[in-house]
Amino acid sequence: MSTLLDQLSTPCPIVLAPTGMVPTRAMTPHVPLTPKEIAADVAEAAAIGISSVHLHARDATGAPAWDRNIYAEIIEQVRSVAPEVVINVSTSGRTWSELEKRADVLALDGDLKPDMASLTLSSLNFLNGASVNAPDVIRGLARIMRDRGITPELEIFDLGMLNFARVLRKEGLLVGPVAANLFFGNIAGLQPTLTEFGLAVERVPEQTTWCGAGLGAFQLTAHALAVNAGGGVRVGLEDGIHLDRARTRLARNADLVARVHDLLEISGRAAMTPGQYRQSVLGR
Amino acid sequence: MSTLLDQLSTPCPIVLAPTGMVPTRAMTPHVPLTPKEIAADVAEAAAIGISSVHLHARDATGAPAWDRNIYAEIIEQVRSVAPEVVINVSTSGRTWSELEKRADVLALDGDLKPDMASLTLSSLNFLNGASVNAPDVIRGLARIMRDRGITPELEIFDLGMLNFARVLRKEGLLVGPVAANLFFGNIAGLQPTLTEFGLAVERVPEQTTWCGAGLGAFQLTAHALAVNAGGGVRVGLEDGIHLDRARTRLARNADLVARVHDLLEISGRAAMTPGQYRQSVLGR
Repeated sequence: MSTLLDQLSTPCPIVLAPTGMVPTRAMTPHVPLTPKEIAADVAEAAAIGISSVHLHARDATGAPAWDRNIYAEIIEQVRSVAPEVVINVSTSGRTWSELEKRADVLALDGDLKPDMASLTLSSLNFLNGASVNAPDVIRGLARIMRDRGITPELEIFDLGMLNFARVLRKEGLLVGPVAANLFFGNIAGLQPTLTEFGLAVERVPEQTTWCGAGLGAFQLTAHALAVNAGGGVRVGLEDGIHLDRARTRLARNADLVARVHDLLEISGRAAMTPGQYRQSVLGR
Repeated sequence: MSTLLDQLSTPCPIVLAPTGMVPTRAMTPHVPLTPKEIAADVAEAAAIGISSVHLHARDATGAPAWDRNIYAEIIEQVRSVAPEVVINVSTSGRTWSELEKRADVLALDGDLKPDMASLTLSSLNFLNGASVNAPDVIRGLARIMRDRGITPELEIFDLGMLNFARVLRKEGLLVGPVAANLFFGNIAGLQPTLTEFGLAVERVPEQTTWCGAGLGAFQLTAHALAVNAGGGVRVGLEDGIHLDRARTRLARNADLVARVHDLLEISGRAAMTPGQYRQSVLGR
C-alpha cells in the first residue's frame, strides 16, 4: 500500500485521446481523423511527452468506425512515428453495442495487435443519448482481452462501475495489472468536486493505474485534481475541443499535452515515459 | 438548512414497494401480483404503518405491464383499503424504454390519478441487463409529470443521477418538492459503504425527501444506514424477497415493514404518517 507522498513522487502517466467519436471537422479544424493526421498528432505529442495513446477509428467520411482494417492502418502509422508509445484502442459502445463489431479490432495480430483496449463498465447516459454496454457484452470483451493478452483500460464514469470492476476481478475476467480512466463532468456521471473525485480515487481497486479525465469545460479541473491526487492524466480533443472553460479558444492536441506538462512542473511531478508505463501497466 | 439532529428528529418516511418487475410466483409465494393481492398487502402494511406505496402493474400472466387500465384497477382497490396512503406508480424502462408506454399511467384522472410517479435519471446496468433511459425520454416523462401535477420520485443508482437531477431542476422540469430513492447494492451502482452512502446523501439536491433502499442481500444494511442518517426507507419485495442476507428465509411485505418499525424504535425515530408525507412531499 503506497502513501499519498509515494503516489505524488511517482511519474505521471499521460494518455492522449486525440480523436474520439464526437468531434467533427465542422466543430474544430484541429481534430485528427485520418490515420495520417492521427499519426502526426501522436508524433507531436510524443515529442512533448506522452505515455500512451487511445485510438478511435473514423471512416472515409469522418464517421466513427469499428473496422479492424482502419485500426491496422492507424496503428501501423502511429508505431512508425512513435514506436515506444503504448497503443490502446477503443471498443466503445457509444455508436454500436454489439460484441462482434466492438471486438473486431481485438483480432489484430503481430505488430498491429493493440497493447491495450478500452472497456466501459456499465450502460450510461451521455449528453445526447444512452450508451448501452450490457453486462454480457462487457464480460465478452473482457474475456477476449484476457485470452489475447490485451490489457484492459477500464472506462469509469461513476462509482458503480468501480464495483463492477471488482466483480470482474472476482470472476477471473480481469487478471494482473490494468489501467482505468476516471471521467468527470459527464451530465449523468461523476462531477469533479473534491469529494466525488476523492471517493472515486479511494474506490479504485488494487493493481489499477488510474488517470483522471474531464469532459468539456472540466478538462483542466480534472487534470489538476488528478495530478495532485497522485494519479495520471488522460488528455485530448476526445474529451474537450477547447482550451478554456468559456469555450472560446479551440485547442490542438499538442496544446493540451503541453498544458499537462506545465501543470506537472508547477505541481512538482514528472511525466511517465512510455517505457515506465509499459512496465507498470503491461508488466513487460 | 437542517442539522443532522433535526433530520434524526423528523419522522421517517416509509415507502412500500410490494411488487416490482422481477419477483415471480416461482421465486416466492409472497409477491402480490393481482390488484386484489397488491391491495391486501398495502392494507396489511398500512395497519403497521407506511407513508406511501410504489406500484407496479402485472398482466394476467404475471408479466410486467404498462397499461393504464391495470393501474386503474390497482389504484382503485388500494385507495379503498388505504385511502390516506400516497400513491406512486412506476414509469420504469427496465422492460420497455419508449416514452408512450411509460407515460401511459400518467394519463389517469380523478381519483385514479397517481399522486407521484417514478423517474429513473440515467441508463444503467442491472444484474442481468441494461435499463435504457435516454435523456430525451427522461425529460419527456418529467415534463408530463410537471404539467399534470404528478410529483416525481427520482430513482438514483449512482452519483451522476444526482447531477442530472440538478440539470432537470435548472431546466425547469423539476419544480417544487420532489422525492428520491437512493438505491444501494446494484452490481453496477452505489454500494452501501458508509462513504458512498454518505456522499450520496450529501449530494441530494434541496427540496428532496429521500429514502434509502438496498437491493437483494443489502436491504437491511441500507435501511439501517438510512434511518441513522436521518432519511426515509423504501422497503418491500421489489428490492429483495428474503429476510436474511443468506437468502434462506422468504419475506412477506408485512414482515419487512414490521422490521423497519423495529429498526425505527431501536434508533429512536418515529414513522411518518401518510398525512405528514403528503404535506412534506406533495405540499398539500
